[in-house]
Amino acid sequence: MGLAAERSAVVTRADVLTAHDRIADSIRRTPALRITDPRHRGSVWFKQEYQQYSGSFKVRGATNRILAAAEAGHLTGAGVIVASGGNAGLAVAYVARSLKARAEVYVPVTAPPNKVSKLRELGAEVTQVGSEYAEAYAAARLREAETGALFCHAYDHPDMVAGNGTLALELQEDIGQVDTVIVAVGGGGLIAGIAAALDGTASIIAAEPRTAPTMHAALAAGRPVTVDVGGIAADSLGARQIGDIAFEVAQRFGVRSQLVSDEDVIAARQLLWDDYRIVVEHGAATPLAVLAGGYYEPSLGERVVVVLCGANTDPRTLSLA
Amino acid sequence: MGLAAERSAVVTRADVLTAHDRIADSIRRTPALRITDPRHRGSVWFKQEYQQYSGSFKVRGATNRILAAAEAGHLTGAGVIVASGGNAGLAVAYVARSLKARAEVYVPVTAPPNKVSKLRELGAEVTQVGSEYAEAYAAARLREAETGALFCHAYDHPDMVAGNGTLALELQEDIGQVDTVIVAVGGGGLIAGIAAALDGTASIIAAEPRTAPTMHAALAAGRPVTVDVGGIAADSLGARQIGDIAFEVAQRFGVRSQLVSDEDVIAARQLLWDDYRIVVEHGAATPLAVLAGGYYEPSLGERVVVVLCGANTDPRTLSLA
Repeated sequence: MGLAAERSAVVTRADVLTAHDRIADSIRRTPALRITDPRHRGSVWFKQEYQQYSGSFKVRGATNRILAAAEAGHLTGAGVIVASGGNAGLAVAYVARSLKARAEVYVPVTAPPNKVSKLRELGAEVTQVGSEYAEAYAAARLREAETGALFCHAYDHPDMVAGNGTLALELQEDIGQVDTVIVAVGGGGLIAGIAAALDGTASIIAAEPRTAPTMHAALAAGRPVTVDVGGIAADSLGARQIGDIAFEVAQRFGVRSQLVSDEDVIAARQLLWDDYRIVVEHGAATPLAVLAGGYYEPSLGERVVVVLCGANTDPRTLSLA
Repeated sequence: MGLAAERSAVVTRADVLTAHDRIADSIRRTPALRITDPRHRGSVWFKQEYQQYSGSFKVRGATNRILAAAEAGHLTGAGVIVASGGNAGLAVAYVARSLKARAEVYVPVTAPPNKVSKLRELGAEVTQVGSEYAEAYAAARLREAETGALFCHAYDHPDMVAGNGTLALELQEDIGQVDTVIVAVGGGGLIAGIAAALDGTASIIAAEPRTAPTMHAALAAGRPVTVDVGGIAADSLGARQIGDIAFEVAQRFGVRSQLVSDEDVIAARQLLWDDYRIVVEHGAATPLAVLAGGYYEPSLGERVVVVLCGANTDPRTLSLA
């Protein structure tokens, strides 16, 4: 599939169902915890997706992307290639290892040494190039053209999006009717999959730190735009622009964005440990910050899911409960 | 109920079902995570009971104990009293707060300041007395006689045991047939409840550090005996003798004990973080140490539950994954 074709792809619930059939045996079915905290008027569940293989939801999309390509004969001895020092890199390296495929991961020279070590432990060949992500990305695409490796976009590919969306099918099976899903947004590969899977049957709220407002800026501008990103959650929500697929899905289903402060995110992450014994990365605490910070008040009886999407974090950065 | 009557009580599945009806709306229904790790031949689930209110299973038993006493008119303005600087103290204080009852907690003067603070945050009156648990226990019983407060034994009370056993009813509902349950043992209040609830339909394995072998020593001696306890898990598995109720249940259902080393426990706790993003206290990692340490090999197709029963621990003691 060429880049132009990818860009124009519309991901639907049918694509998510196909992805589910493809990946269900390869991923972990993550639990949902019902919260009965009287502070919340509605019924709230945590989707504990941070317990997924490789520590984030990205394994769903990466598995679907790579297995679909393998079915189509596009996975060669050159293996797979990805530009990411974060969750996408870990996920692609994890999936490649499980399939005994070669994995190349391009990261900036500024990537934290422990992340590079982790990628190498997973068997990936790590190339450090450039001082920022865009340079590593460009180098990876050049390398792709050279070797014929399967390029795995971190978020903006229909198979990635459809794979991520399988999380929502589990929610429907475990919980029944879902009224509202609150989910963190970086490049938008997760929210797009969830919105496509639920196909208009639920409201979808994009939770974003003010310091990394890719969806918010795109909805305001009427198109994906580049924003400055930084702040506490930049390690997982550091994409500088929402993906085209995510933007299309967001418009189709009326996704809203709710901004929160970095302080809200830090408090929500600590609350997850204190009250639920859950450790997540900062980005993954952003959806709870929307509720706990009082930015969204569920109606009486409303069935709300807070997606906790990753835990590639250092538990030593928490305070004792 | 007098002490002699308590001591002779036999806890059955019917008692656990009664407890379930009593407490289901007051406790958190904790998730089970299916593990598909190919290292294990059978099917393995983690019962994520460490996500229970107050950070351990003890809230189940404490809720049942206190609500049953209230129904019988035994909960007076004097409130409840417990001798424990650990999970039982936290659980009783938590339940008392939710019922707006007074709670007194007796702990040794050696209790860690952060645990004392936590108890006080929950609204308990904390009395520090004696250099070890036995002295705090004796002082609490004297105080009980003085005030008429409801004494909540940390493990050896039939209502405590029956309440804890409700965890196993959730397993049956979520998983169906359970063949084997591996569970940590200190005073035995959890294993007794689980064994009673499953009523001979599953094998029950007591997981114990060699440094705290209360069940192992009792099974060898043919009666509860006092043992030296210490080691890495003593903060949660520090009872020096198995409870009479737990010993009776263990004999009735042929419970076996499997000892592991402190090193096995530490490795299992780290494995839980590395591979599943779960943080538990050391005692709660003991059942996984039985599997991961190779002490127990499930048969092909065997359905095994590893109970992860508490997370009142400092996440800063883990290593980065």
